Amino acid sequence: MGYREFTIEGRNAVIEAFRAGKPIDKVFLLDGCQDGPLMTVRREAQKHDTPIKFVTKERLDQLSETGRHQGVIACAAAYEYAEVEDILQAARKKGEDPFLFLLDNIEDPHNLGAIIRTANLAGAHGVIIPKNRAVGLTAAVARTSAGALNYTPVARVTNLARTIEELKKEGIWFVCADMGGTVLYDLDLRGPVGLVIGNEGEGVGRLVKERCDMTASIPMKGSIDSLNASVAAGVLAYEIVRQRRG
Amino acid sequence: MGYREFTIEGRNAVIEAFRAGKPIDKVFLLDGCQDGPLMTVRREAQKHDTPIKFVTKERLDQLSETGRHQGVIACAAAYEYAEVEDILQAARKKGEDPFLFLLDNIEDPHNLGAIIRTANLAGAHGVIIPKNRAVGLTAAVARTSAGALNYTPVARVTNLARTIEELKKEGIWFVCADMGGTVLYDLDLRGPVGLVIGNEGEGVGRLVKERCDMTASIPMKGSIDSLNASVAAGVLAYEIVRQRRG
Repeated sequence: MGYREFTIEGRNAVIEAFRAGKPIDKVFLLDGCQDGPLMTVRREAQKHDTPIKFVTKERLDQLSETGRHQGVIACAAAYEYAEVEDILQAARKKGEDPFLFLLDNIEDPHNLGAIIRTANLAGAHGVIIPKNRAVGLTAAVARTSAGALNYTPVARVTNLARTIEELKKEGIWFVCADMGGTVLYDLDLRGPVGLVIGNEGEGVGRLVKERCDMTASIPMKGSIDSLNASVAAGVLAYEIVRQRRG
Repeated sequence: MGYREFTIEGRNAVIEAFRAGKPIDKVFLLDGCQDGPLMTVRREAQKHDTPIKFVTKERLDQLSETGRHQGVIACAAAYEYAEVEDILQAARKKGEDPFLFLLDNIEDPHNLGAIIRTANLAGAHGVIIPKNRAVGLTAAVARTSAGALNYTPVARVTNLARTIEELKKEGIWFVCADMGGTVLYDLDLRGPVGLVIGNEGEGVGRLVKERCDMTASIPMKGSIDSLNASVAAGVLAYEIVRQRRG
């Protein structure tokens, strides 16, 4: 399975792509423009929960590869996103308790790539990311995942909190990483588990945190604030691996 | 304490900098040029174990900020490197068993920065890096360390294997991260310890590995080769933290 990041330019091409169900990460629209086709693009983007960015003509010209963007450029990834159900299915197939990563708005593609790499090696069955704000499966993510993106399914959901609610019905427990929590070594992290990692700057959002069953903190002995997000994810994931061994 | 990366250009300026003991990361010299002052720069660089790179005039022109490099540009960091003894002293002062990180040729500045950040938060007393090949304390490293470079001393040594030999006399045990080793959870990592992390592509070098007392491996359940170097360092460092908690 390969990976290719590409842009789709022009009104009809972008509308077609949406209607064909192609996975589109983001749409750039000419700011202030209200004509029919561009309003259609906007409706399609909203229908598919695709983030829209309103930008200047200069920015569009810069992003354009063909020079004929007609006020709209869509960024698409050749990687297909998985469904959450695919991830659960993968766990069932292996006869293992589900082990999921949920990323609450990771913004740095290097962190996302490194976390997918960690998820793969820690034996997680998949990664769930939100559609908005967070970085999607871009070329940089694919690169830093060191091939893990070919093996570890990544699903995108509209509302991470709601997804957690639904997965709880499947018997999965959720632990989020947060400073105020119980030291991770004192938690029982065995069984079906979803590990929730927060945004680089702000941590896990309130609505998501409220839905988690446990809050795990990593002991911080130093003089600075927090670990790099992908390092924190690695430390937590491997504590789960350690406890599952025993 | 701030951080600034800068270049020193011109023959006398670079010779002066060496003689004043300024920490110089690297010297770029005009390839093929054999005149007196440039030979003096070369001797000074060798005396201080500073890596020399022979480059074309075009490359020097490109690197130059003043346009008057006279065939030599030195890259210096405003961060002062610590001595290994300073790191041991820091442990003694805190009344703790020494906990060191030794990095065998980490090449990516983002990894080096993230590892220094991890060392700080895991309560390590310092980081030791080799002078050659590896990345030094550049601006990118300072940035990704998220401030840890202000608190965690980093020492540079000429020969990592020899440094390990010397530190063994202080009663420090060395554990290196390597695929073929014992699963880290089965090792006793308490007491004075030096954690050796290898290069991103090649792992820990043979000469360094031979001097380590233990080899620790992180269980890899996935389909790809290895964790990101800074994630692996985090997983190992926090297993040491866990075991030290008692």
